[in-house]
Amino acid sequence: MRILAIGAHGDDIELACGGTLAKAINNQHEVKMLVVTGKGSKSHKDVIIRTDSEARKEVEDAASILGVTDVTSLNYDDTNVPYSIDLISDIENIIIEFNPDMIFTHFVFDTHQDHIRTAHSTLSASRRRNNIYLYEPINPSGQGYVAFRPQLYSDISSTIEKKISSLQAHKSQLKKYSNKWLEAVEARAKYRGYEIGVDYAECFEIVRTELDL
Amino acid sequence: MRILAIGAHGDDIELACGGTLAKAINNQHEVKMLVVTGKGSKSHKDVIIRTDSEARKEVEDAASILGVTDVTSLNYDDTNVPYSIDLISDIENIIIEFNPDMIFTHFVFDTHQDHIRTAHSTLSASRRRNNIYLYEPINPSGQGYVAFRPQLYSDISSTIEKKISSLQAHKSQLKKYSNKWLEAVEARAKYRGYEIGVDYAECFEIVRTELDL
Amino acid sequence: MRILAIGAHGDDIELACGGTLAKAINNQHEVKMLVVTGKGSKSHKDVIIRTDSEARKEVEDAASILGVTDVTSLNYDDTNVPYSIDLISDIENIIIEFNPDMIFTHFVFDTHQDHIRTAHSTLSASRRRNNIYLYEPINPSGQGYVAFRPQLYSDISSTIEKKISSLQAHKSQLKKYSNKWLEAVEARAKYRGYEIGVDYAECFEIVRTELDL
Amino acid sequence: MRILAIGAHGDDIELACGGTLAKAINNQHEVKMLVVTGKGSKSHKDVIIRTDSEARKEVEDAASILGVTDVTSLNYDDTNVPYSIDLISDIENIIIEFNPDMIFTHFVFDTHQDHIRTAHSTLSASRRRNNIYLYEPINPSGQGYVAFRPQLYSDISSTIEKKISSLQAHKSQLKKYSNKWLEAVEARAKYRGYEIGVDYAECFEIVRTELDL
Amino acid sequence: MRILAIGAHGDDIELACGGTLAKAINNQHEVKMLVVTGKGSKSHKDVIIRTDSEARKEVEDAASILGVTDVTSLNYDDTNVPYSIDLISDIENIIIEFNPDMIFTHFVFDTHQDHIRTAHSTLSASRRRNNIYLYEPINPSGQGYVAFRPQLYSDISSTIEKKISSLQAHKSQLKKYSNKWLEAVEARAKYRGYEIGVDYAECFEIVRTELDL
Amino acid sequence: MRILAIGAHGDDIELACGGTLAKAINNQHEVKMLVVTGKGSKSHKDVIIRTDSEARKEVEDAASILGVTDVTSLNYDDTNVPYSIDLISDIENIIIEFNPDMIFTHFVFDTHQDHIRTAHSTLSASRRRNNIYLYEPINPSGQGYVAFRPQLYSDISSTIEKKISSLQAHKSQLKKYSNKWLEAVEARAKYRGYEIGVDYAECFEIVRTELDL
Repeated sequence: MRILAIGAHGDDIELACGGTLAKAINNQHEVKMLVVTGKGSKSHKDVIIRTDSEARKEVEDAASILGVTDVTSLNYDDTNVPYSIDLISDIENIIIEFNPDMIFTHFVFDTHQDHIRTAHSTLSASRRRNNIYLYEPINPSGQGYVAFRPQLYSDISSTIEKKISSLQAHKSQLKKYSNKWLEAVEARAKYRGYEIGVDYAECFEIVRTELDL
Repeated sequence: MRILAIGAHGDDIELACGGTLAKAINNQHEVKMLVVTGKGSKSHKDVIIRTDSEARKEVEDAASILGVTDVTSLNYDDTNVPYSIDLISDIENIIIEFNPDMIFTHFVFDTHQDHIRTAHSTLSASRRRNNIYLYEPINPSGQGYVAFRPQLYSDISSTIEKKISSLQAHKSQLKKYSNKWLEAVEARAKYRGYEIGVDYAECFEIVRTELDL
Repeated sequence: MRILAIGAHGDDIELACGGTLAKAINNQHEVKMLVVTGKGSKSHKDVIIRTDSEARKEVEDAASILGVTDVTSLNYDDTNVPYSIDLISDIENIIIEFNPDMIFTHFVFDTHQDHIRTAHSTLSASRRRNNIYLYEPINPSGQGYVAFRPQLYSDISSTIEKKISSLQAHKSQLKKYSNKWLEAVEARAKYRGYEIGVDYAECFEIVRTELDL
Repeated sequence: MRILAIGAHGDDIELACGGTLAKAINNQHEVKMLVVTGKGSKSHKDVIIRTDSEARKEVEDAASILGVTDVTSLNYDDTNVPYSIDLISDIENIIIEFNPDMIFTHFVFDTHQDHIRTAHSTLSASRRRNNIYLYEPINPSGQGYVAFRPQLYSDISSTIEKKISSLQAHKSQLKKYSNKWLEAVEARAKYRGYEIGVDYAECFEIVRTELDL
Repeated sequence: MRILAIGAHGDDIELACGGTLAKAINNQHEVKMLVVTGKGSKSHKDVIIRTDSEARKEVEDAASILGVTDVTSLNYDDTNVPYSIDLISDIENIIIEFNPDMIFTHFVFDTHQDHIRTAHSTLSASRRRNNIYLYEPINPSGQGYVAFRPQLYSDISSTIEKKISSLQAHKSQLKKYSNKWLEAVEARAKYRGYEIGVDYAECFEIVRTELDL
Repeated sequence: MRILAIGAHGDDIELACGGTLAKAINNQHEVKMLVVTGKGSKSHKDVIIRTDSEARKEVEDAASILGVTDVTSLNYDDTNVPYSIDLISDIENIIIEFNPDMIFTHFVFDTHQDHIRTAHSTLSASRRRNNIYLYEPINPSGQGYVAFRPQLYSDISSTIEKKISSLQAHKSQLKKYSNKWLEAVEARAKYRGYEIGVDYAECFEIVRTELDL
């Protein structure tokens, strides 16, 4: 199986489906992470949160913890991701080349502008693909203003630790959000796990999916 | 894989997921059909549409065409299916006994009273099950008043003929609805197939499902 | 402020809004818990889960931990709660008598038949009330088949412990569901708390509410 | 054109589509009002709100003001309308006999039990009909817990006065709700009218409708 | 009646409402087709799909088969349609000039960027119009990520052949999508027709519409 | 309490929550109005509707009638408000500086491009804020294409007159829309008031809110 996870920023993918990706790697699937931005970022007051090289390093370290070696950054500007033919084409080219069986991306009704536009661009680029799943948004980087519908549950009991570790590799983010960030992510995974009777899970809203019988 | 399909009436299951069941049988899965009613039926003017034995025969013949040998009828009254602890328990007992990996049932926002109550009863009975899918409703036995969301697509190109044949085995229904019924079912499967790039498909709205990686 | 919480079974209220009620008591508000059933319960195989007197004792103990002294049980049959004029009138009488400023009840699109009918009966009974909130459903007693929309957040950081203790008082349930039940409830509260920047929160979907300025 | 309006109680139809029916009569269409209950009613404390004969008289007077002479009452019990094959069949028989081009009924997500069940019964009975519209619910007899979607607008500028007069004929209701009831209905019609650029309108959510070209 | 159909690309209008337009022409209504782009298009790899003059010719031929003589192209760039005051004003000017009784446009929750922006621009431009209908999206040019709600059905049994012929006039598209495209469109029309008891239908979600009595 | 109301144009805020703001001022709360545009406007045919100085004057006069002295205009171009990091940052800066307890903004599914983008920008800028409410859209400046859900009701019986007066201060708009505009706004407030049993109310859909106990 080939799995493509698309996130606006370094850390979005780990937050939303890091456990699933690590499990996929463990089970010999091919995984590709696509980060739409990829440069450093500043706070709204121009304080540097992470430099370009820090951003690159954090993304690589985090992916490495999950066991993912195929990571591409598109280098669109942080906070300014477009919903344009450029980004759509970039994603479409990667879809054609990588030929994924599953695509994960942001929730369309998230509130972060970069998440929304990454989601729309992915939906446009993957019109002819049949297994598309949307992340459960999480504060503080994103929230929903339309009810998120948890539908696809992925048991990540065997990889929850890697997921949390991969987030710890995002040092600049961890500094910004504090340890409560990790605790919330872990609590969410426990709650979602309980909903399907396992220890930890990640969940997704489904755009469409094929039944494999 | 063990697949449980629950329908209010003989023919509901074939209409909604007959192709999927036939394919599952072809691929060595175990399939059980559960029909909540199972006796004959009358029109609203008390004209007999099918007798008890005809109903039984039609259900058996149709199942047989799909290759399904495990068929249970609960014998609730046609047009009068309850949403009650009795039906919920009956379904729950079958779920415990058959231990399905997947459960298919009616769309909750269908307009036929028996479909709605079968759906609700199934949802209550399968609260601890993780792969639950809802049928795409179809006129004239049912319609939706809330938008149905096609999400799970099942490629039935290899079994569309069995699906149509199984409906032909419901002679009393075919007489009631005419050949246009079969043509509409076939057209729907073609349309849904096109949406995922195959010849024929059945589709479902997803309550929740587990990612199998 | 007078707060009325309505649940189908002993433990539903504690699960969904126990922290909020304990906080209300701490802050000198009046709280009434209304349990629609109230007798003992059996599993679907007629194994006794709790006897009538155990049920009564557990409800009283749990309420007492939250600091709630006003608890009414309507004694409708477990698994068989009706959506009928009887229950609607019972609730309406309590609303008229207690005159609540806020009413909490089950999510309408829950999957447990008793939860659904308690929700519908409450909505019918409180047509002229202006602050009505719906519980976030939780497995295994209930799940949603329509997306729950978390809208009203209640900071329960100061009462999370009482909430968990009140659930421990439901000994028969704890035995049935194991300690993972408590861990999931605690994890959910932590996740929901993080969404609004506090340690623990309960959340609700809003039917309607008045702005108090 | 033949128009069938179905309401749970005398006054529901006038509230929701009285102006539309009066206009239809003015324009030579055939109109039938079907009231599911039809006997008197009591408050939840058994105080008589209207006797059987008062109820009958009020319904007749109100219909007469709108110009509607074809009124049928099914005499189901007030507050206790079932969603059953009996009511479905009663409605189905009337649909077959009257053969309406359009059917109006309650909003499915109303909060009054009689409204909800009248709506469900109508939807079941009219599965093969193509023009079905749902009333905008109004307090205090009903409210919605799911967003009502105003879609079909009917200009009633020429019949707003008849609509209000028909409600005044429901003397027992007017006494119960006071004159503010009429003012609210008039205000709603003005607001809805403004949305389409006319003086007064009634509006409806659409189940399905045929384009007449 | 004056009918305005707005589509992002040549062929979108025919796909979605070609049968309805042909029928309108047959019944002496005035029809205008507005194509937002109108120049040629390339695949994402810069292979020319159709040249500017081919695009123009195909649109004209297709319209001519439907009997529509009033076709305007706005010449916005394919894949790059904006949601901007420019396009909104262009559409608004045409609305003021043509003064349509009905407006058809794309589904807002389609996945093709041009479809979405055409839909939004039309909704902005037609804020004061009362009969607005949204196309049922179809793969591969578009899909929905929110459930499309089929509400307005148009019987096109008399014009299904013209509809299909008009799509055949889009030779470049037919070459791109193969004959399965036409078969899917025909199957969809048959399925939708069956839902209202006719041979073929097109269907639409309704933004708002006026009742013509 | 500190209340921030954000509108695309002078008059949007008054239309949607003018009564609430006036009441807040009466009750000693702090109120800030933020107008995203703020310059004059032209009709789509370049006829001047209001000049820059008229726009400024109208906004000031209207605010003054409500008792609001803190008004900021961001001077983005009318009809061309962006959903960009610029506007998001502008709003974020004001949120940080004013530190509101509540934020009011446009409905996300409005049809006016400026309203939509103001709503999205506000949602992005207030990701970490917990009391966010969306305006009920109103024709002719805006309409919804998704059902608006009235959830938060604000009793404005004591300030309805100020609300209407504040709209009268928008002389250019009043001239454009005529007195029917004021009558519709007043009718809507009466209708919404009736829904919660008061004379006049404004209502809002809730993104999220904190329970204050």
